[in-house]
Amino acid sequence: MSGDETTITREAATELGEEVMRLAGFAPDHARAITACVVRAQGDECHSHGLYRLLSCAALAEKGKVDPKATPVVDDRAPAIVRVDARRGISLRSFEAGLPLLCEKAKTAGLAALAINNCYHFSALWPEIEAITDKGLVALAMTVSHAWVAPAGGTRPAFGTNPIAFGWPRPGKHPFVFDFATSAIARGDLELHRRSGTPLPEGVAVDAAGKPTTDPLEAINGAMLTFGGHKGSVLSAMIELLAGPLIGDMTSAQSLAHDDGAGVIPMHGELILAFDPASFLGGTVAESSAQAEGLFDAITGAGARLPSARRYAARRRNADRPMPVRRAVLEDIAALRERLRR
Amino acid sequence: MSGDETTITREAATELGEEVMRLAGFAPDHARAITACVVRAQGDECHSHGLYRLLSCAALAEKGKVDPKATPVVDDRAPAIVRVDARRGISLRSFEAGLPLLCEKAKTAGLAALAINNCYHFSALWPEIEAITDKGLVALAMTVSHAWVAPAGGTRPAFGTNPIAFGWPRPGKHPFVFDFATSAIARGDLELHRRSGTPLPEGVAVDAAGKPTTDPLEAINGAMLTFGGHKGSVLSAMIELLAGPLIGDMTSAQSLAHDDGAGVIPMHGELILAFDPASFLGGTVAESSAQAEGLFDAITGAGARLPSARRYAARRRNADRPMPVRRAVLEDIAALRERLRR
Repeated sequence: MSGDETTITREAATELGEEVMRLAGFAPDHARAITACVVRAQGDECHSHGLYRLLSCAALAEKGKVDPKATPVVDDRAPAIVRVDARRGISLRSFEAGLPLLCEKAKTAGLAALAINNCYHFSALWPEIEAITDKGLVALAMTVSHAWVAPAGGTRPAFGTNPIAFGWPRPGKHPFVFDFATSAIARGDLELHRRSGTPLPEGVAVDAAGKPTTDPLEAINGAMLTFGGHKGSVLSAMIELLAGPLIGDMTSAQSLAHDDGAGVIPMHGELILAFDPASFLGGTVAESSAQAEGLFDAITGAGARLPSARRYAARRRNADRPMPVRRAVLEDIAALRERLRR
Repeated sequence: MSGDETTITREAATELGEEVMRLAGFAPDHARAITACVVRAQGDECHSHGLYRLLSCAALAEKGKVDPKATPVVDDRAPAIVRVDARRGISLRSFEAGLPLLCEKAKTAGLAALAINNCYHFSALWPEIEAITDKGLVALAMTVSHAWVAPAGGTRPAFGTNPIAFGWPRPGKHPFVFDFATSAIARGDLELHRRSGTPLPEGVAVDAAGKPTTDPLEAINGAMLTFGGHKGSVLSAMIELLAGPLIGDMTSAQSLAHDDGAGVIPMHGELILAFDPASFLGGTVAESSAQAEGLFDAITGAGARLPSARRYAARRRNADRPMPVRRAVLEDIAALRERLRR
């Protein structure tokens, strides 16, 4: 552990987080859900989605964008669709509110969708994916963000960073989970380059004239690119359509316009699908699970890593000990608490 | 038109295709479905999925792998799942057999899945995607293939070329459709490089020792790579899981083992999802359609092209005139017909 790092127990982090979120104006159920999510990410050593996010959630409440006391409204839309109106609240409580019906519908219908509308979404998608794989279901989730990303062959933004995540349950093991942005670089990483003044990798951004650039400020005034060229670009378009117009919510361009310069976490929709293997297979899932394990063995046998391996290693490492955290993050949270207490 | 090309009318191509497929042993309904599919691709000037495929379908029947007279069995598995057992037939008849129930279920449940099992699949996915968008539904489809593709960071094959396709209906216009292989290069293109002895692009393959190669023969003995690095690689894994174990069908490695050196079109499963926007939205889809059109305008306004634009241009060009086709393809089909008539 470097001098910049210290540790905190889950209990202390939970107590701190819930207090600060309540001080920032969040209702107790939101404060609990937000804190549980960031503590979990911190335990997996996902620093960018960890305790640090308490600061941006507080800022969101202070700017008056989010409704910190919103009560989600669950709508049993169709035999395989649950919609939850987050009513401008943070997405996490809406996910909790919709999850039981999503799982019930997936097991009855074979697959089902949970559409969350009008939510502020700051978290990674993998905690939601894991909540579904924990029920023995296969999960796919996606959201739009703010329009910062140019389509392949184009020079101006049309898409968000548009993350997509997937999970496959593995009995007795951590699930197979991936969660990635369809932009070539994460927005947070671009910000880090801007602050540190270090050049971007080649091929991740263009300037305002549409020319390739490695200058982070030029990239912010221009556009990020998608991963994987034309293929990544059309996937990003698919996410815009499925997590936007399909579920009656904003595209990344509309979400950016709604932000109107506030510079906070995006408000938008989220689409989550759950598939029930037992319904597809009409019986035991043992053979199917064994096939999937064969695939995972082939991946590691070919010399590659399974996604989330680093995260799961951190989870195991931190299971019975205080979690590492950057000292500056705890100091900023403590200062925020002092300010909010006054 | 070059000296290598000629033209054929849809009527003549249909008559020729159906005759040759029947001579190759296919039942009339299979002969009709196969021919309709390849004639349609030829009209879109997708030469690699056009009339040329009649030759590989005939070879498949001659090698005794496919059942050319298979009758698909439709299983109404769950409120949102249709399974069709192709019984070792070509996939197209199974898709036709399952499509009405898929659409009915999507409209009732909000979304639904069609799982086709035990099918030989030679066609592109876009004809099936367009059959679903024609009904006003959103479509997503995927299949595995044969294990020729290494996971990112790995040196030996674990995945197929695993195509994924998506479609969004656009009233009065051609739908927004993409259809791409998650391998960095199409298997057919790799074959073309091998035959012509021209080097591959950089970054699409490794040799048997796992070292990057541009030599097509070394690539065939080694492995192709996925598009988009780690992100493309995990998407390919997702396709293996969803179109394989989830629906009780083979992975790409199992499909390659089943081929057992015959070198024919892969037998495997296919997963197709259909989403009903009206069910999600609970009313009119006009606003949602307008939002999507705004996204498409942003894409083209940014200087990029919509996917399938080249194909739709060819479709318009060939709507009222004979379709272009390579002379050698027609000669090979004519020679095959003569041989089969004897």
